[in-house]
Amino acid sequence: MPVTKPTFAPPKPWTECARDLVNVAMGRKPADLVVRNGKWVNVHSGEVIPATDLAIADGRFAYCGPDASHCIGEGTKVLDARGRYLVPGLCDAHMHVESGMVTVTEFTRAVIPHGTTSMFIDPHEIANVLGLAGVRMMHDEAEAMPVNVFVQMPSCVPSAPGLEHAGASLGPQEIEEAMGWPNIVGLGEVMNFPGVAANDQTMTGAIAATVKAGKTVGGHYASPDLGLPFHGYVAGGPEDDHEGTRAEDAIARVRQGMKAMLRLGSAWYDVAEQVKAITEQGLDSRNFILCTDDSHSGTLVRDGHMDRVVRHAISQGLPPVTAIQMATINTAQHFKMERELGSITPGRRADFLIVSNLAELAIDEVYGRGVQLAKDSKLTVDIPAYNYPPEAMNTVRLGKELLADDFVIPAPKGKAEVDVRVIGVIENQAPTRALEARLPVREGIVEMDRVNDVCQIALVERHRGTGAVTNAFVSGFGYTQDCAMASTVAHDSHHMIVVGTNREDMAIAANRLGQVGGGVVMVSKGEELALVEMPIAGLMSDERAEIVAAKADILGAAMREMGCTLNNAYMQHSLLALVVIPELRISDVGLVDVRTFEKVDVFV
Amino acid sequence: MPVTKPTFAPPKPWTECARDLVNVAMGRKPADLVVRNGKWVNVHSGEVIPATDLAIADGRFAYCGPDASHCIGEGTKVLDARGRYLVPGLCDAHMHVESGMVTVTEFTRAVIPHGTTSMFIDPHEIANVLGLAGVRMMHDEAEAMPVNVFVQMPSCVPSAPGLEHAGASLGPQEIEEAMGWPNIVGLGEVMNFPGVAANDQTMTGAIAATVKAGKTVGGHYASPDLGLPFHGYVAGGPEDDHEGTRAEDAIARVRQGMKAMLRLGSAWYDVAEQVKAITEQGLDSRNFILCTDDSHSGTLVRDGHMDRVVRHAISQGLPPVTAIQMATINTAQHFKMERELGSITPGRRADFLIVSNLAELAIDEVYGRGVQLAKDSKLTVDIPAYNYPPEAMNTVRLGKELLADDFVIPAPKGKAEVDVRVIGVIENQAPTRALEARLPVREGIVEMDRVNDVCQIALVERHRGTGAVTNAFVSGFGYTQDCAMASTVAHDSHHMIVVGTNREDMAIAANRLGQVGGGVVMVSKGEELALVEMPIAGLMSDERAEIVAAKADILGAAMREMGCTLNNAYMQHSLLALVVIPELRISDVGLVDVRTFEKVDVFV
Repeated sequence: MPVTKPTFAPPKPWTECARDLVNVAMGRKPADLVVRNGKWVNVHSGEVIPATDLAIADGRFAYCGPDASHCIGEGTKVLDARGRYLVPGLCDAHMHVESGMVTVTEFTRAVIPHGTTSMFIDPHEIANVLGLAGVRMMHDEAEAMPVNVFVQMPSCVPSAPGLEHAGASLGPQEIEEAMGWPNIVGLGEVMNFPGVAANDQTMTGAIAATVKAGKTVGGHYASPDLGLPFHGYVAGGPEDDHEGTRAEDAIARVRQGMKAMLRLGSAWYDVAEQVKAITEQGLDSRNFILCTDDSHSGTLVRDGHMDRVVRHAISQGLPPVTAIQMATINTAQHFKMERELGSITPGRRADFLIVSNLAELAIDEVYGRGVQLAKDSKLTVDIPAYNYPPEAMNTVRLGKELLADDFVIPAPKGKAEVDVRVIGVIENQAPTRALEARLPVREGIVEMDRVNDVCQIALVERHRGTGAVTNAFVSGFGYTQDCAMASTVAHDSHHMIVVGTNREDMAIAANRLGQVGGGVVMVSKGEELALVEMPIAGLMSDERAEIVAAKADILGAAMREMGCTLNNAYMQHSLLALVVIPELRISDVGLVDVRTFEKVDVFV
Repeated sequence: MPVTKPTFAPPKPWTECARDLVNVAMGRKPADLVVRNGKWVNVHSGEVIPATDLAIADGRFAYCGPDASHCIGEGTKVLDARGRYLVPGLCDAHMHVESGMVTVTEFTRAVIPHGTTSMFIDPHEIANVLGLAGVRMMHDEAEAMPVNVFVQMPSCVPSAPGLEHAGASLGPQEIEEAMGWPNIVGLGEVMNFPGVAANDQTMTGAIAATVKAGKTVGGHYASPDLGLPFHGYVAGGPEDDHEGTRAEDAIARVRQGMKAMLRLGSAWYDVAEQVKAITEQGLDSRNFILCTDDSHSGTLVRDGHMDRVVRHAISQGLPPVTAIQMATINTAQHFKMERELGSITPGRRADFLIVSNLAELAIDEVYGRGVQLAKDSKLTVDIPAYNYPPEAMNTVRLGKELLADDFVIPAPKGKAEVDVRVIGVIENQAPTRALEARLPVREGIVEMDRVNDVCQIALVERHRGTGAVTNAFVSGFGYTQDCAMASTVAHDSHHMIVVGTNREDMAIAANRLGQVGGGVVMVSKGEELALVEMPIAGLMSDERAEIVAAKADILGAAMREMGCTLNNAYMQHSLLALVVIPELRISDVGLVDVRTFEKVDVFV
């Protein structure tokens, strides 16, 4: 299957357009497009300027001012904005496409009607499966988009060296190499925050390579401790952070010269508290940036993307222009792209929205590089599907057909009951609890305890086809039926996580994902209740976001039908191998106590 | 004479300090310096945070927070700030060292006690005399300073090709070469604004080379016309402008995505009007930057430098922290140096001031890269004089001994009186008037008219020793005595301008500058009334700023003694060859009407 040739050429460098832009501004050459009579939302001055015209050529703004009639000539398209607002296209400063379970192309298709024209994506999921080659695939797909999709080079692959084996690993050398790619804007969130404060060589090397390249170092400090470990992390060089949740987190970051990225994802609600740093404490808003981090396809389809974040920020008391700055110029400045995007001013890419109500951010039309891309919440251009190369497919290598026996947990000899460690899922939170339970033994095999909500979890090695299965126990899903759910989205190493009340169903679910090349499946008594296929690296579907969202809805319904009561059940499932967040996790190495970063036994 | 080896090494790159900074922040290594109990003027958050400690290592901030006691160890110097303010070192975003008539070293010596720790200098005067080699000399001297002196590559040398011949010319090729030098931060003010709007190839080439290098394009749009020529200039790529004088100028620039640089020089008073864009119109202050452009040595010695500008900005109604932001973080961001300087935060160069009164900016101590440089307005380090290489000396090449006859303007044959063009100096303004006068003829020679304040002006070629003299008339100095003043500072081509009421004195003055290698001299009836020697390129003294200021004072007194009543008489003198500012100027090519950019005859 050949890789699709880019359909949309990357924008011409400004240096190649400058003469045309000057000629258009001076009235010596007709513009491609003139927008008349708009209210200019000027994110530089902080004003809304009525009766503004824009002239566009080569996909960039050539003239922004009171009268562009001199830019109109033969072939110039003229659009009357009828007094509506002209808003710069919105930027998502940090996000993972893979969280939408779709390709960059499908993600882009989904978010353009919501006004997003620039995304800064960190493809660290695919990096854990396919390494640098996987990053390059998404990098190249990103370049082919009609809007701006920049790539942050993943910094922590694997997330916890020694405690897991991912499909690949990236070090300072790979990071240095990637810094030379055209579409790389910086280093993706440096999640190993204890490593930074400890001067871990992989971390310091990755950061140094980024700084030497003059690019931006993304941060991720996921701890409420604002004492020494925080100060050590800051000294190590990360320039932003989206892991804050409290106003004091945002304030601490800004005071240290970092950008506070306030996050509203499908399951992250970190704007309302932190925006008080501006609305109540009066901090200078220029250091605050909005982002989504993780958006499910359902959120994109039903609730929106950056428009949702900006609307929410306004609803929390920010002036609309300030909220828009936090999703446009602030982001562009942070990534040293102020000459290229983030505002409606001469020379910048002509990415803009026509908005009929500013406070509600009602987006009528979306333009990218001077071309209308969406109108009335619908795409008006065709963005053809992007075919991934064969090496991105069939990445689920089980090495054998799994049997129910592979999920058996034998008891220590002669025991009638055993005390075991249990991963305890906490509603609405990423951390887990390290629980213990007493379970019965039958015929030498440890039994599950459905009454007390203790079922089995397995991590199935899927990168190297070793056939290895790590078995353990989990509590919190509330499954009351015979069932098993398997997922090859298993942050961050992305092996396969199977959770089940029934070992036959666990085997069937695991094998099914091996067949389809990955995804999520729910099986009950041999029957497949739901399947979301994700054949690209076992992480992404090649289907439309609407279709994926519909399949994910069916999956959610199936989980509830099986007795699960969690709010974000699929996300909880897929995070259970994340061996960097306390307390107890599972990996291909075994059960891991993340409080001590040590492997522990299933039996207490 | 060998070039002095740099006394102060350039700061170690952050990447080489990072491990140390982390270790100090974490308390694993003692800091070099800890400052305790200061009020942290935080230019990121916009706050003043009491009871703050700073820990410094490798010349950079390692820790900024409530308690740095864990950073104190053997060998750590501890300084009690006693509740005083900790302010980031001030930045001058655009300036010409040559305006101070002293070297970079002497300029630096003069301004450090005033709190300036970063300068962005455009050495376009020396570039007109010595070309790229001259720029490199000042670049290398700049690197040897204990504070940050960055160089903007001169963009318009000569300022008006075809209308003058400077000592050198720089094109896109030289600019591309210089962009690779370690201390070049961008392109110096693009003064040929009609050239930009006309897509002049030298201008577009220079700008493109800068943008490709990822550096900042400095602007200079010296016209009140905010219509098409302005929009054409903006589309051409300059990113800042310090030539605005009215609030509407600043507003127009910011709306277009440029930074408005507000200038308070020795003779420029452009802050008060333009700052109203913030204080009265409410524009976002992040796009406003303070600078001096041109400071005479007398101003530096008596009134100060960036401290003077910040104080003035505060006196115009800006909150102190906002004014400080406009001289620190805003500047750093503009030059993409936010990681390096402009704030007191971890990783940045430890350039800071201890200030006892914020609103009055009373500076008690100045630190650069963690070292105390000044206290109580006096330098506390030795910055040895920097010796320029021999090729920077003896640049005044007259080619012959000048005689009074060289300044004779012969009348057209048979005329008893003639109508001549006269350059009319306008008090307190850079533009001149194109005047006319009727002058008597005696023995075939046009006579001056002292009663009506018409005396002679000559431009003496001094770069190539051609012996050529362009003679014409000037009015406005008010000289009532026999005298002549000569200067090899003659913007921008820096030939020699001689203004006199007496041709013998004109010859003596010109020859004297030839002897001393340039400078300014005032002669009356053969007697030397004042001399400021500037042997470096004929532009800069190698003496201390205080001495140069004292000599310049004597010069000013001599001009007044000769009858001159102008406020900035020397500056007016030195600008009369600036063939880019209307209306009438003199060059080595002849008399130039800058309204039409044409050479005109002395006789009407």
